[in-house]
Amino acid sequence: MDFFRVQPVNKVIELIEEYVQPVSKTEVVSLSEASGRIVAENVYAREDVPSFSRSTVDGFAVKSNDTYGVSEMMPGFLSVIGEVEMGRLSEYDVQQGQAVYVPTGGMLPTGCNAVVMIEDCEQVEDIVNVSRSVATNENVILKGEDVKAGEVLIKKGTKLRPQELGALASLGIDTVAVVKKVIIGYLSSGDEIVPFSTTDLPPGKIRDVNGVSIPALAEQWGAEVHISDIANDNYSDFRDKAEHLFQECDALFISGGSSVGAKDYTTEVIASLGNGDPGILVHGVSVKPGKPTILSVSSKKPVVGLPGHPASAMIIFQLFGKRIISHLTGQGEVFPLTGKASVSQNIPSSPGRTDFIRVTLEEGNPFPKATPVLGKSGLIKTLVNSDALLEIEAPKEGVKQGETVTVHYFM
Amino acid sequence: MDFFRVQPVNKVIELIEEYVQPVSKTEVVSLSEASGRIVAENVYAREDVPSFSRSTVDGFAVKSNDTYGVSEMMPGFLSVIGEVEMGRLSEYDVQQGQAVYVPTGGMLPTGCNAVVMIEDCEQVEDIVNVSRSVATNENVILKGEDVKAGEVLIKKGTKLRPQELGALASLGIDTVAVVKKVIIGYLSSGDEIVPFSTTDLPPGKIRDVNGVSIPALAEQWGAEVHISDIANDNYSDFRDKAEHLFQECDALFISGGSSVGAKDYTTEVIASLGNGDPGILVHGVSVKPGKPTILSVSSKKPVVGLPGHPASAMIIFQLFGKRIISHLTGQGEVFPLTGKASVSQNIPSSPGRTDFIRVTLEEGNPFPKATPVLGKSGLIKTLVNSDALLEIEAPKEGVKQGETVTVHYFM
Repeated sequence: MDFFRVQPVNKVIELIEEYVQPVSKTEVVSLSEASGRIVAENVYAREDVPSFSRSTVDGFAVKSNDTYGVSEMMPGFLSVIGEVEMGRLSEYDVQQGQAVYVPTGGMLPTGCNAVVMIEDCEQVEDIVNVSRSVATNENVILKGEDVKAGEVLIKKGTKLRPQELGALASLGIDTVAVVKKVIIGYLSSGDEIVPFSTTDLPPGKIRDVNGVSIPALAEQWGAEVHISDIANDNYSDFRDKAEHLFQECDALFISGGSSVGAKDYTTEVIASLGNGDPGILVHGVSVKPGKPTILSVSSKKPVVGLPGHPASAMIIFQLFGKRIISHLTGQGEVFPLTGKASVSQNIPSSPGRTDFIRVTLEEGNPFPKATPVLGKSGLIKTLVNSDALLEIEAPKEGVKQGETVTVHYFM
Repeated sequence: MDFFRVQPVNKVIELIEEYVQPVSKTEVVSLSEASGRIVAENVYAREDVPSFSRSTVDGFAVKSNDTYGVSEMMPGFLSVIGEVEMGRLSEYDVQQGQAVYVPTGGMLPTGCNAVVMIEDCEQVEDIVNVSRSVATNENVILKGEDVKAGEVLIKKGTKLRPQELGALASLGIDTVAVVKKVIIGYLSSGDEIVPFSTTDLPPGKIRDVNGVSIPALAEQWGAEVHISDIANDNYSDFRDKAEHLFQECDALFISGGSSVGAKDYTTEVIASLGNGDPGILVHGVSVKPGKPTILSVSSKKPVVGLPGHPASAMIIFQLFGKRIISHLTGQGEVFPLTGKASVSQNIPSSPGRTDFIRVTLEEGNPFPKATPVLGKSGLIKTLVNSDALLEIEAPKEGVKQGETVTVHYFM
């Protein structure tokens, strides 16, 4: 059993970076299932995109030097030798003094290096009057200009957004190797905790809020979640349930029982899992809310003891859980999205402790206005009413009205 | 057929607000399926949370006036009459001069109104020395302090985040009425477009990128997407496919064919759908990229003609598609998430047109640094390489190095 090791927030983050390693199991999925997944290996382009030089406008494909010096007052005359059809091979070989009509997206005929927009042309039978000059490659996307065959299109570790899926589609790639979903185990403990679906709450009991909100967050971040039945404050029941999840998951989160109480088995259970190397790294974090947080890594699997209070548990999971999941997927350091805000009133804070204050955000210039949501740390309604978390860094004694602060969005 | 109606971005947004009405079909889903869904009616609390007054610390429950004036030098002595067990009814009725041990989360015994933290107590057999005074309700969450029975817990139109799911769980609510997923129809058109899974690309053809990226975005925003086979540039084929989707969907997005070309049937097809009331509202938007955008509302269904270029289509869909979906779900005006950035170089722009510049973001103080990603509007790689879109408002001639600008995150 480890002694108490209360650590500042940035030290906990360093320990996560140091000890949490990618799981690196991969699987191949189709493009329609790949949204939000993490690419497991570099994806190379196997052909040029576009596969032919195309016009980006409706107009006349020309040799650009045929247009030099023309103007509305002094148009140039070119002879129209035909029209490129959309989606068809162009078989024209354009010579000096000639032009071919090309629609947007149509193939640039051989011999041309630019397209004059139709607005700058007037066609009279086989002759087109060109009233604006074009530079080489103007209104054209060249073969391979978007993506060149052989180049890395998407780097290993990239999260697939709709635009990455589009880029894969442009190359005819319909499956992609991604990192397997990380499996997160979740266990609520405590004699007072009953399943959330309990209709008539017995005296002294509370429903399992964390067993709903923490898995929902983990799923939102792309993890697969295994949820255990609630463990009561009985060492062997608690340890059996934790051990079972520890075996089948990549990381384990346990909520409740982590403050100094007679029935606190959480530390003992966490210490008993895996090979104990390196074991419990953090026992208590200088943060509010969320002080009674435990971080352990054992047999290469991170285990976190979350505070029991629902709001504290969610804030700690936002802060550390998201980083753990992102390191397990090999995405590396993905910060929770932050922004700046201007605080609407003085907020005191104890130096030596990072404070996360629930705030609402209103439009403001140049920053949105952040106003604290009142309420004790255990209250879930304060989280429902808030738009973001305002961070007061550990050395500070508070923030002053009008001060520019960092806010963490919920996502 | 409507004549050209080129509109500025803010006018298009006003038209969406004016004409796109909530679909307001609802369904009941379980909590485990409710993440990200929109609540269809106000959810009322049917009981108090917590259902009993609880201690927020490990310590001794007392009458607060028994601790007035005590200090480390002058502790007060109280007689310990017992201990509250977690998750059990407390049957003590505490009198003046008495104390009961309570663990974090334990029920506050009758007669007590505060808890002294264990760190401020020293127990010697049946006596506890209290060295710090507590105020009324200190270290206690009162019955109903989080949520009061009968109050509105979650307002109609709220998007269910993990904290809202937690709040529902705290009340034992395991199903919730949500707005049915909006059904978005998507159709790519154009003789040059072939299915993205085409391995050997015939000359002059390009793969259907928008048919992958646009549906992925819509799904990310919570919509269900119906995708049609690609329509070729043949009026009756195009109209049949559009009409079919128009009937079964709440909104229809059509990509391609919206610039002025010989084979442009998009406007005609869009004008033919539904009862034509009010019909085509916008034909062209003063925005770059994305000018050839069409907005129509007919038989209460919005129909959008997106530009064919993949990057332009995605940017327009970010700008208008997200708002349309959010109005259809009854969420109202949900802005794409924006932030401020400091621009790393001068970027010119044409006044009278809103420009969206693809940028990368790097850490910076007080704002991240935004650097333009070079490339033509049709290039999907420029979107893959970018973190956000920098907006240059219509009246401006550009932005200067170091200027503070608005960026739209992709999400």
